[in-house]
Amino acid sequence: MKLGVLGGGQLGRMLGLAGIPLGLRFRFLDASAEVPAAAVGEVHAGAYTDLAALARFAAGLDLVTLEFENVPADACRTLARTLPVLPGARALAEAQDRLREKTLFRELGIPVPRFAPVDDATSLQRALGEVGLPAVLKTRRLGYDGKGQVVLREAADAVPALAALGGRELILEEWIPFERELSLLAVRSRGGALACYPLVENQHRGGILALSRSPARGITPALEQEADRHARALLERLEYAGVLAIEFFQRDGRLLANEIAPRVHNSGHWTIEGAVTSQFENHLRAVLGWPLGDTAPRGHAAMINLVGTHPPAAELARLPRTHVHLYGKEPRAGRKLGHLTLVEASPSELERHLDAVLRAVRPELAGA
Amino acid sequence: MKLGVLGGGQLGRMLGLAGIPLGLRFRFLDASAEVPAAAVGEVHAGAYTDLAALARFAAGLDLVTLEFENVPADACRTLARTLPVLPGARALAEAQDRLREKTLFRELGIPVPRFAPVDDATSLQRALGEVGLPAVLKTRRLGYDGKGQVVLREAADAVPALAALGGRELILEEWIPFERELSLLAVRSRGGALACYPLVENQHRGGILALSRSPARGITPALEQEADRHARALLERLEYAGVLAIEFFQRDGRLLANEIAPRVHNSGHWTIEGAVTSQFENHLRAVLGWPLGDTAPRGHAAMINLVGTHPPAAELARLPRTHVHLYGKEPRAGRKLGHLTLVEASPSELERHLDAVLRAVRPELAGA
Repeated sequence: MKLGVLGGGQLGRMLGLAGIPLGLRFRFLDASAEVPAAAVGEVHAGAYTDLAALARFAAGLDLVTLEFENVPADACRTLARTLPVLPGARALAEAQDRLREKTLFRELGIPVPRFAPVDDATSLQRALGEVGLPAVLKTRRLGYDGKGQVVLREAADAVPALAALGGRELILEEWIPFERELSLLAVRSRGGALACYPLVENQHRGGILALSRSPARGITPALEQEADRHARALLERLEYAGVLAIEFFQRDGRLLANEIAPRVHNSGHWTIEGAVTSQFENHLRAVLGWPLGDTAPRGHAAMINLVGTHPPAAELARLPRTHVHLYGKEPRAGRKLGHLTLVEASPSELERHLDAVLRAVRPELAGA
Repeated sequence: MKLGVLGGGQLGRMLGLAGIPLGLRFRFLDASAEVPAAAVGEVHAGAYTDLAALARFAAGLDLVTLEFENVPADACRTLARTLPVLPGARALAEAQDRLREKTLFRELGIPVPRFAPVDDATSLQRALGEVGLPAVLKTRRLGYDGKGQVVLREAADAVPALAALGGRELILEEWIPFERELSLLAVRSRGGALACYPLVENQHRGGILALSRSPARGITPALEQEADRHARALLERLEYAGVLAIEFFQRDGRLLANEIAPRVHNSGHWTIEGAVTSQFENHLRAVLGWPLGDTAPRGHAAMINLVGTHPPAAELARLPRTHVHLYGKEPRAGRKLGHLTLVEASPSELERHLDAVLRAVRPELAGA
């Protein structure tokens, strides 16, 4: 069984590492052949918009999935004429456009911050009336890691913000003074089976995920069930197959949906050692229509992202009881180069261990 | 950092799967390019005796290790002129020859069944006098999975046994009516640090490992310490770097050393999910001179080998809480095609789960 993956970054690499033991083989499509996934399969270097490259990529594959959500929906549709592409163009289209995504949340009864579409100065004024201040003006498409967004604190910020982001379709969103970000990793198989991992608690630095704890601290069963309900509603509406991440803001004990990622997600990397079945294996099981694996945690886990730079591997190997995951990428500011995972039997052991590891590799996060 | 591995079978494949997250890249040397390790690195197809092939293989590597112990010692010596080869020719030479291996055990004070060298009918008669009956006549070299050995129950078996194995250097060993086979996985780093996994209990079928349980049932701390002492004596004497497996017979509460394998070992596959650090990762840490990872178990584990044939992967995926490892090999009688690993919190949960999985995949082992 040979799977194609659109995108060849670290998520593709970890899909390959999870799939090889299942007897799967992989081919990746990416702009360059020098990508992290090259360690675990063949890489076709090509553009998603090049129909001939897509045809060569598809030849001999049993199935296509993706590790990058900004694949043009046209590429998915072209591939879907000859073989299954999962999750499909529908889920991508919803996830690629913040306005459609938030509209879908609202339709499904999932609480969401106030929002309104913005195309120009006139619609921005109307949106400010609906949403209020402070607010965040964002591009509807292609934003990630905090890029393509401007915070509006007062009315005078509106014109410069529009100028900074202008010429693109935008959305104005209520700025939420949230207590923390939570994310839920959910997986649905082609056969309709559904499973969720525990709610995860995320901390960012510079708009980039820095630290995840699983399970999130102090979650009530009611909140966990609410998150699972929202996930089920979304995945069933989208007739989704694979892993999907939902990011929530937590405020006053309530969840507000922020966005979805129709793929395996950085806040689920802890599942490699911290859950019975990793998000990567479960994504593969789901798109293949196999039974899902158990999503139960194997303890209390934390995941620390290594961003921009990191100590040499031999130094990281000194950290006790720490699982090292490097992606084989060249250091560059703001680039995710790897992650570390800790799994301990109790929250207090995890916090003690996490504090020691953070002091060694990301001291700015210690105590956070 | 690019590592060369002599041999490209499933052990190489699992070394690659463990090493890629550490940022390592791999090149394998095997007779064929169509080997399990091809999923995780480049494969050079060539003979260990082909000096030009060895030179091409070595070019650009930082280090060479092995996943197959019957590599000619000459190949190691040739490679060792230009780069580190670990474990080295010394350990291989001891492990490749049952007579040297058993002599080493005796020198180190490790209890061992009686044995004597056999080259011809005369020395066989002398050996029978020393060893007694029943006994096992074995080739000194290149035996594995029960091949190259004949059991002698009475004096009349001697001549036919010699005829069956003749023309090669042989060893006669006391036949031990052992209660069970235990194995110990030990790892020693280039810097001299040493760690052991718990004693494992192994069951064979047709001379091939079928089932391992870790930790072995009913082991006293004294027996565990005795095994660790033997491992330390061996690895220090050999100035060993990497993982080494020692197989013991258990009889009347005592350990008798049977043989060593100077590499990662089938009875250590449970460590992938069942220990904090897998034998594969620890082998790589050891040969690189990095700090060793924690060998502590993460519960009670069992490993079931899939030999000759197995249900399709989608069927194996139905087994609850079962980790599937397939090697990408064509089915063939007696061939190790994959393994399953179970990890549970208690011995009773493990036995219940193991019984259910054995009934599904290897019913002949259920209740064993």
